[in-house]
Amino acid sequence: MSSLHPHAKPNAEQLKSMRSWVLFEKLSDAQYKDLQQSLKYQPLSPGETLFSQGDPVTYFYFVHTGQIKLTRLSKEGHEKVFEIVRDQQTFAEALMFSRQPRYPVNAQAITETRVIAINAHAYLRILEKSTQACFTIMASMSQKLHAKVNEIDRLTLHNATYRLACWISDNVTQQDMQADIQLSTPKNVIASQLSIKPETFSRTLKRLETEGLIKVHGNQIAITDIQQLRNSITAERL
Amino acid sequence: MSSLHPHAKPNAEQLKSMRSWVLFEKLSDAQYKDLQQSLKYQPLSPGETLFSQGDPVTYFYFVHTGQIKLTRLSKEGHEKVFEIVRDQQTFAEALMFSRQPRYPVNAQAITETRVIAINAHAYLRILEKSTQACFTIMASMSQKLHAKVNEIDRLTLHNATYRLACWISDNVTQQDMQADIQLSTPKNVIASQLSIKPETFSRTLKRLETEGLIKVHGNQIAITDIQQLRNSITAERL
Repeated sequence: MSSLHPHAKPNAEQLKSMRSWVLFEKLSDAQYKDLQQSLKYQPLSPGETLFSQGDPVTYFYFVHTGQIKLTRLSKEGHEKVFEIVRDQQTFAEALMFSRQPRYPVNAQAITETRVIAINAHAYLRILEKSTQACFTIMASMSQKLHAKVNEIDRLTLHNATYRLACWISDNVTQQDMQADIQLSTPKNVIASQLSIKPETFSRTLKRLETEGLIKVHGNQIAITDIQQLRNSITAERL
Repeated sequence: MSSLHPHAKPNAEQLKSMRSWVLFEKLSDAQYKDLQQSLKYQPLSPGETLFSQGDPVTYFYFVHTGQIKLTRLSKEGHEKVFEIVRDQQTFAEALMFSRQPRYPVNAQAITETRVIAINAHAYLRILEKSTQACFTIMASMSQKLHAKVNEIDRLTLHNATYRLACWISDNVTQQDMQADIQLSTPKNVIASQLSIKPETFSRTLKRLETEGLIKVHGNQIAITDIQQLRNSITAERL
């Protein structure tokens, strides 16, 4: 385990950025000040190990800058990357909540990384004093979970729209540019060609129809505005 | 507010599917049985209202099948869709945790929808008996949140890879198929054309390079295997 800076404390800017994370934002000022006694600042060089599989769980971590790789060794001895934790996120807090005694993974810095170690017992001690404190954090976690589910939904649909619009655009010849055209390929074949799940494909067609870009009649797709369809391809930034 | 089936109870299959949701999976059998007393089954027709903005928060909901639209009216009187809740998810639980007295949105069925209403007080009463019960749910929520963050990461990167591979493929002329080619367009211009954020674009290039499909030298991209690059476009299903 790394112990380059065993007594270093996070600075004011790091404390502020950590506080906006879901596990800390609803703590009272007094609670957060109390927690600060238990914090440890830890800079890591690329490749440096933060903890190893089997080490006792004493801390969970907030990545201030950089990236941490969580890995396990397979039976064959190959490193399997389990998760990449990016900056402004915590990790290993689920182990704390479920009271697991040992880390099931190795944690290693990928780039120059700065983490804040939060003493798991100190954090739980604060929450144990009131279920209300737990509830406010659970409220934030719920909201965050809903936001992520929506983002995945948006990305999946957007991704499918992009593929379908590319495909239609590629299959329209120059002279069709100004007119409506008919595509006679069955929808399930197009979906398969574009590696889009059938239910996502149906929702994508509906979305393009609602936006007035295409009209769907059974297995035929009529394009009402090819230029607008092409514009839609670059409309949203990833 | 809809009150077609005020006394109906969810059936065994619905109870089972609800139990796998993060808020219920870690409840003990006794706790889940206790909770069942407070449940109400509610079928909704398309367009039917479940609750309206300003109604008191008595229940939170699990969507068994169908879709619920959460909306608010804008100052101009337009309906603004705030969230679409799909099946096998809860909603309004954040309001319960944060003890908000009234729903800030309208909830309306989009399709034929079956929801289970969970009495918020009954649920909180179970959790209030022990912070440990809260902690086990918080552990699950943390894990779920990490999984969603990873999925978003994967989708974003995959989406960017697809766009970049499409673009490269479109810009390779037939005679270049067997040979390495050089693209002299600056990377930031390509990223902008494809509506990919610079940091995602850099990660995507690195990924394609790691996979041996391209080689990047400064602002030039050499394609080492155009056929494999084209295959990668349809490698993963959305």
